[in-house]
Amino acid sequence: MKALVYGGPGSRSWTEIADPGIQDPRDAIIRVDAVTICGTDLHILGGDVPEVAAGRVLGHEAVGTVVETGDGVAGLVKGDRVLASCISACGICRYCREGVYGQCRGGGGWILGHLVDGVQSEYARIPFADLSTYKLPEQVGDESAVLLADILPTSYEVGVLNGRVRPGDTVVIVGAGPIGLAAVVTARLFSPAHIVVIDKAESRLQAAKMFGADTTVLAGTDDPLAAVQALTGGLGADVVMEAVGTPQTFELCTTLVRPGGRVANIGVHGKPAVLHLEDLWIRDVTITTGLVDTYSTPKLLDMLVAGQLDLGNMVTHRFALDEFAEAYDVFADPARTGALKVVLSR
Amino acid sequence: MKALVYGGPGSRSWTEIADPGIQDPRDAIIRVDAVTICGTDLHILGGDVPEVAAGRVLGHEAVGTVVETGDGVAGLVKGDRVLASCISACGICRYCREGVYGQCRGGGGWILGHLVDGVQSEYARIPFADLSTYKLPEQVGDESAVLLADILPTSYEVGVLNGRVRPGDTVVIVGAGPIGLAAVVTARLFSPAHIVVIDKAESRLQAAKMFGADTTVLAGTDDPLAAVQALTGGLGADVVMEAVGTPQTFELCTTLVRPGGRVANIGVHGKPAVLHLEDLWIRDVTITTGLVDTYSTPKLLDMLVAGQLDLGNMVTHRFALDEFAEAYDVFADPARTGALKVVLSR
Repeated sequence: MKALVYGGPGSRSWTEIADPGIQDPRDAIIRVDAVTICGTDLHILGGDVPEVAAGRVLGHEAVGTVVETGDGVAGLVKGDRVLASCISACGICRYCREGVYGQCRGGGGWILGHLVDGVQSEYARIPFADLSTYKLPEQVGDESAVLLADILPTSYEVGVLNGRVRPGDTVVIVGAGPIGLAAVVTARLFSPAHIVVIDKAESRLQAAKMFGADTTVLAGTDDPLAAVQALTGGLGADVVMEAVGTPQTFELCTTLVRPGGRVANIGVHGKPAVLHLEDLWIRDVTITTGLVDTYSTPKLLDMLVAGQLDLGNMVTHRFALDEFAEAYDVFADPARTGALKVVLSR
Repeated sequence: MKALVYGGPGSRSWTEIADPGIQDPRDAIIRVDAVTICGTDLHILGGDVPEVAAGRVLGHEAVGTVVETGDGVAGLVKGDRVLASCISACGICRYCREGVYGQCRGGGGWILGHLVDGVQSEYARIPFADLSTYKLPEQVGDESAVLLADILPTSYEVGVLNGRVRPGDTVVIVGAGPIGLAAVVTARLFSPAHIVVIDKAESRLQAAKMFGADTTVLAGTDDPLAAVQALTGGLGADVVMEAVGTPQTFELCTTLVRPGGRVANIGVHGKPAVLHLEDLWIRDVTITTGLVDTYSTPKLLDMLVAGQLDLGNMVTHRFALDEFAEAYDVFADPARTGALKVVLSR
């Protein structure tokens, strides 16, 4: 089959490799029907995630059809249409038993396209298939479903829920890529007073407004602190989410939060940041980091079916499965292409 | 009257100044009966808290007797024996209305010995006296009471409660000064499995054992990470509290915490720290900072009366009120003197 193979920092190719097979009784093999590219894949290609070995098939967000199941798979049969989630879960370890699947100690967690071959390929092996997939209702199309493989549960669990967004809050989201935009969509579920989005691309700020931001700040031109203080009587934001993954954007978040507020880091970081404890020690600030657990995925699917999540024009570009080279080029240069999510389908 | 006056970094003197008087109807004047010195005062003298102006009377932990009340004071009368807490509270602002007194926006918060004259003096003005003092039950002696002005509620609220210590947890406390030791005492209320204390002074580790730590680590000699991993099967600590206030000790905390664990900063910091987001972004870590609110003080007083808080030999040195120069020398050099808390009394 063909797959998108990582060749080390800066290097990727859509190339022929061996078909995947069952390696463990809990595995399933899926035919990949729709798949997307994540900002995390760009972080990997940028060298920010050094655990990814050269030769790895990338990708952790797909919709597929089950073509084979191991003897230990109880809940799936050949032909099932499933969401292959970014998180695999052994279901047995202490973290899985607490629902903290992202931190699975039994061989799961974020492994697809990271520690084992991923789903940017014609077929893929899904470890721990019972707990790593979600059967899809007919009403949910591939394009919407694939957004629930990572960006929706990540922005919701790691941003909105970790940040404890409450009604009336002023919420700031730094970064209006797909994760930041999904954070806008899911933050709205808690009726905040203001959603402020900061990005350096005007096109992404336009998208943020479309998804529900009421205030946008063009980084490098507008003053984010002044904007947030104007909305909050000088107090600062209740919740600030980091959805970029650089030291500068993280440090910006800690200057925008009010005393007693929360900074929820969602971004994938490759470098340390400076934590200004000389200011923060006295300010009752909570900072969270997190990998998604995907415990919210079933409920997000319900909300999608019920029309509570408007994912609007999140998918901006569509490709055939063998157009990965072009799809990566488009996704990696949003300032030129206006890309949000790109979907590749059979 | 005489008072301990800050003269800028490194400079303090016990000297004659004007008696305090009522400046606002909500003020009370107390005669200081017992008073202590805080690690924070040493941070001020070290230049870590630049908002403190030269000429300021230091001190924010005292027991006193009310000698005068402003017309707006409703709950105190002359002769009342009170705890003068480190936190003053206007009671009216949005933070006070949520019980977040430490972040008071109405002129309170940590102001004593910081933004207004403190209690290391013969008499002291206590702003917002109704909400900034606690009437003391007869059974609670001055020496125990003064420990509830700051170190007990601070370690409990900012360390144990922010860190969400739970039964069975492995708790690490970095720093075995009075705050760290009070964190041991209050962490025990939640029945952790292990309390590990790290300090560079053997005498303080002995004290930590006396207060209830089961494992001690001599910094610079023992390996803290190896000790914590040995206790937790390689996982890391559920809760790590920073009770020193240096970049190095904070950074140590973030290496000792397990995935999904909590780092509760209690220390007063004068410098930024490095936050290793390249490791932490994926580990579900929660970091909290905080100034005490003292909402727990009434309950801590109840627990003290009921015998639930063993403050043992927390007070190691006793002085007369006019021996502040010597008391500071003893408190500032615990390696030589073995000092934990020092109390000065009339």
